[in-house]
Amino acid sequence: MSSVDVGVALLGYGTVGASVNRLLVESAEEIERATGHRLRVVRALVRDASKERPFAAADGVLTTDFAAIRDDPSVDVVVEVMGGLDPAGGYVRELLAAGKSVVTANKQLVARQGADLFAIASAAGVQLRFEASVFGYAEADPTDDVNGADAAAKMAILATVAFGSRVTLDDVETRGITEIEPTHVSAAAQLGMVVRLVGIASLVDGRVDVRVQPALVERSHPLAAVDGAFNAVMLQGDAIREITLEGPGAGGIETASAVVADLVSVVGTAGTGFLQNDACWRELEFMPEGEWRSPFYAHLDVADRPGVLAHAASRLAAHDVSVAQLVQRLDEGRAAIELVLHAAPIGAVNAALVEIAALQEVLEPPFVVPVISERPL
Amino acid sequence: MSSVDVGVALLGYGTVGASVNRLLVESAEEIERATGHRLRVVRALVRDASKERPFAAADGVLTTDFAAIRDDPSVDVVVEVMGGLDPAGGYVRELLAAGKSVVTANKQLVARQGADLFAIASAAGVQLRFEASVFGYAEADPTDDVNGADAAAKMAILATVAFGSRVTLDDVETRGITEIEPTHVSAAAQLGMVVRLVGIASLVDGRVDVRVQPALVERSHPLAAVDGAFNAVMLQGDAIREITLEGPGAGGIETASAVVADLVSVVGTAGTGFLQNDACWRELEFMPEGEWRSPFYAHLDVADRPGVLAHAASRLAAHDVSVAQLVQRLDEGRAAIELVLHAAPIGAVNAALVEIAALQEVLEPPFVVPVISERPL
Repeated sequence: MSSVDVGVALLGYGTVGASVNRLLVESAEEIERATGHRLRVVRALVRDASKERPFAAADGVLTTDFAAIRDDPSVDVVVEVMGGLDPAGGYVRELLAAGKSVVTANKQLVARQGADLFAIASAAGVQLRFEASVFGYAEADPTDDVNGADAAAKMAILATVAFGSRVTLDDVETRGITEIEPTHVSAAAQLGMVVRLVGIASLVDGRVDVRVQPALVERSHPLAAVDGAFNAVMLQGDAIREITLEGPGAGGIETASAVVADLVSVVGTAGTGFLQNDACWRELEFMPEGEWRSPFYAHLDVADRPGVLAHAASRLAAHDVSVAQLVQRLDEGRAAIELVLHAAPIGAVNAALVEIAALQEVLEPPFVVPVISERPL
Repeated sequence: MSSVDVGVALLGYGTVGASVNRLLVESAEEIERATGHRLRVVRALVRDASKERPFAAADGVLTTDFAAIRDDPSVDVVVEVMGGLDPAGGYVRELLAAGKSVVTANKQLVARQGADLFAIASAAGVQLRFEASVFGYAEADPTDDVNGADAAAKMAILATVAFGSRVTLDDVETRGITEIEPTHVSAAAQLGMVVRLVGIASLVDGRVDVRVQPALVERSHPLAAVDGAFNAVMLQGDAIREITLEGPGAGGIETASAVVADLVSVVGTAGTGFLQNDACWRELEFMPEGEWRSPFYAHLDVADRPGVLAHAASRLAAHDVSVAQLVQRLDEGRAAIELVLHAAPIGAVNAALVEIAALQEVLEPPFVVPVISERPL
């Protein structure tokens, strides 16, 4: 197998960038065996070339000048691990147009501008790979982790790949884990469930729905076992039935490992047209709002007066929503009603809850999230 | 993208073979998009061409003559789903030597004769792929499922791929789930654990150990959640930390799905040398017997006499094996002692148990299996 040097440039040389360099050095032999090529970091874009680094780059590699990377003919592939939309987006565009393949860990960039970037890559005959953007690094700013924006970007990318049809960040209905109150966590525990932030991408009868929200997950369900910084992806399909992948979601070395896997794929498949670039090949419709079906959990704070339960139940029945489980707890003239509802369209559930919220006895806006269980409810 | 017909032949047209044909027909468009090629089943070897089939093959496809497949220039790739070593092994050899790539679901064949088959494939410049052999189909004869031989074949293949060094079936230390008695299951439950058949491949300081045996798995551990026909693989490594994959282990459609994935890889990477054929590239030593370390669970049936516990504990201490947890249960003059032992070399644990078994008060041969827990014991 002939050994050819492939020049790699990094945009960013923080935790992830330095780990990519280290993995390329330490795994050089395995990578050459798999691809026939020796990969070497020849340039790394940084803001301050004099700063101390965790795994020092070779002399002359660090640069503060983007053009020195874009215009360097020895750079074949560029790894973007700087994050953010600007200037990262512009840099990636220029690099692809200049005929350099790009591997990115930037989920917001891929989720928002994927269509455009893949078109540029295809036109230039180079590859854009993004595995590290979806099992990715915890954000420096945790806001996007708790408000669901981080998960929504990942879901947009994964749904695009899974269904072969474009899903952008704006197509993802998003609610954050910030909505969850301690009372929901303890109610979940009483029902044998746990609270998890869950993204769900569905393809039903040729129509797509993608959403991120807190959900109540049955304790025996594989997704319930995922906690801490771990996350999991469960795939369900005709031919695979159900496959769950679970791993650490946050960490520089894991992200670097995904980047290196993408580098190996770029180098190994260059010129074959095999499974590369844009996953989109069709345009599926989105499901009309309200049609997505699921079992749900609802929490109602009500005044403890006769008839309130009957009122609520009749509103649900009027919308064809049936109750699988009901727990009522009393506390000084107030009552909390916990409902587990059989699978129903989210529109019907919301319509019933709007009517219930209008009842005089209901003290707070109802709270509702999907329920995920092993057996259909 | 130019569309070229790729001729596929099947050795065997039972549940899996028919499912492969169906998936190739139903997913023709996606496969062509990913590979640039249209795959079509042109031949299928069967014993009785007149038998009714679940997904009928096209006219003229079924044949009882192996030579008609080997000598057919329109056959580019052959799928072996007939199972067994003979005649499947001979057929695969002849096909590879004749310049046809082979995709096999036959774990016993790959685990026993992999080295030889990969050498033939490499010499002929064709591919041998085997994904379906490792997340595979339940055997028609369940003997190999319960005595561990099925899991041992999978572990030999997975360890070879993971470590890049040959592990054959004979290198795998194997004990079956048949050793487990109801008393072990209830003892496990009292310790907050469950019994699972577990294969463990370890690479420590450059030396390999591969074994299959029943193990006690802590209930909070991801492997404990795997039951029924599901199985799981947990990968631990420096750069990936810990990734768990879980899915249905038994089923014709899942096996067919893995076969089709391999077909797509063969067609997509033909001629690139990318990640194909033999995973072996080095020769690692095996760990000397007795050096493999783990926490263990041991069960002792003893006469309820003063001093027996002290005797057992002193034998363990003499071999530097320390006790993490001890439960003693009395029953009409007999006692059962359940021990959870801190991590120790299996040789030291076995040596201590041989000495304990020789004590007059010990009524049955001691029973010992590894313990798998989230935190090191």
